[in-house]
Amino acid sequence: MNRFSLNHATTKYWDQDEAIDACARENVGIGLWREPVAAKGLENTARRVRDSGVTVTSLCRGGFLTTGAPQALDDNRRAIDEAAALGAGELVVVCGGLPEGSRDIDAARRAVADALGALAPYAVESGVRLAVEPLHPMFASDRCVISTLDQALDVAESFTPEAVGVVVDTYHVWWDPNVYAAIARAAGRIASFQVADWITPLPAGVLTGRGQLGDGCVEFRRLRDAVDAAGYSGHIEVEIFNDTIWSHPGPDVFAETLRRYREHVA
Amino acid sequence: MNRFSLNHATTKYWDQDEAIDACARENVGIGLWREPVAAKGLENTARRVRDSGVTVTSLCRGGFLTTGAPQALDDNRRAIDEAAALGAGELVVVCGGLPEGSRDIDAARRAVADALGALAPYAVESGVRLAVEPLHPMFASDRCVISTLDQALDVAESFTPEAVGVVVDTYHVWWDPNVYAAIARAAGRIASFQVADWITPLPAGVLTGRGQLGDGCVEFRRLRDAVDAAGYSGHIEVEIFNDTIWSHPGPDVFAETLRRYREHVA
Repeated sequence: MNRFSLNHATTKYWDQDEAIDACARENVGIGLWREPVAAKGLENTARRVRDSGVTVTSLCRGGFLTTGAPQALDDNRRAIDEAAALGAGELVVVCGGLPEGSRDIDAARRAVADALGALAPYAVESGVRLAVEPLHPMFASDRCVISTLDQALDVAESFTPEAVGVVVDTYHVWWDPNVYAAIARAAGRIASFQVADWITPLPAGVLTGRGQLGDGCVEFRRLRDAVDAAGYSGHIEVEIFNDTIWSHPGPDVFAETLRRYREHVA
Repeated sequence: MNRFSLNHATTKYWDQDEAIDACARENVGIGLWREPVAAKGLENTARRVRDSGVTVTSLCRGGFLTTGAPQALDDNRRAIDEAAALGAGELVVVCGGLPEGSRDIDAARRAVADALGALAPYAVESGVRLAVEPLHPMFASDRCVISTLDQALDVAESFTPEAVGVVVDTYHVWWDPNVYAAIARAAGRIASFQVADWITPLPAGVLTGRGQLGDGCVEFRRLRDAVDAAGYSGHIEVEIFNDTIWSHPGPDVFAETLRRYREHVA
């Protein structure tokens, strides 16, 4: 179980300090989010992390780079600083959807590549890798114009593996007929491996309709084996956005998630 | 406008006879659905089509081939017969999702290829082409394990172009970073070109959340130019599943759809 990491979004309403301490007690990692970190204070959180001895497996999230706005670059530099302060080696980057009113998806993709080029040197100096996450194609218009792992790799491969890696999230990539070839291609670039299940029918609020491990149709062990075979030996983050799961107490969700992980992924 | 075709699902609650006559008057095509055809009677519908002189650009739909059940093959043979009786050269095939309880998407894809192999000779004898439609990846679990145009072509290319073609539906493929290369590759295989817009945010009922032409972010002219450049010169079917559009009178939706098509596609 020492590769397990709880992405804090899985227990969104659980006090961050309690979640950090619980993960430390179980000797598992934690993935943190910028907003709760800011609410607790960056220095306070960094101290809590150091004192507890927990590993911060990623900071979520930077990105939203498709508009070309200088403010977006500034915000991403701050996110890199925050990741560095927390000792998180990976900043998850969700690239952004089409700018308001635009239909030009190629232009949006070029803007992402340009912005990564502007950010990469600063990330390397800071000891933080930009972890580009392809999101399911149903988010292409509003959240991420990078929809497949191959496409994320096409972007990442313009940079050194220390500067730009990719996230493999089962929820986003399970359907892709090329996913196993893409995972093999991603050797040396896998910055984060995240797991959530795909449940059918798709819940009404698609953003928060991810399934607890085992409740859906994702082939976790097959995907995990492929990621392992590509040389990834880091943490496996469970990241589930789900309104029902969020309505339960954090400690209960944590215990259930550990149990499900043991059964379906470990 | 002579390449326009109204897919009857766009005006789902409009009496089929009235829709046929309206399309004939406008000298445009129509795409029919098996259930309303059966409700009116196959022979009655075939006569109405002949008498009106309208072109039936496709019959929707065959498919649901992932279980390997013999009943599915029988049902698809009946669908081929119906298409032939209506003079529709193309039977749209929606391949089906994961069988109940299965997580083995590769097995489901193999079942599709096997079933197409079983159906193709009968389709050719009947003068009907099986038009394999890749569906947006958000339907991979419950409707279609063929998610990209390249994947549909991988399947189709085991057969002659007269037996198995592909459908290019803008709603399903617009997000794909490889879509323009895939359309070029599809030269000689494009059996149907369907258009609907992608609107943001994604409506709650994703199945019926397609947008009227121009309401979303699809680059219609660019996709149409690519399809034309691949040698496709057939009808362009407007197929929009949308609860709000369905709540309006058929003739009004038809008029508005013609107007939108002229503005955004023609």
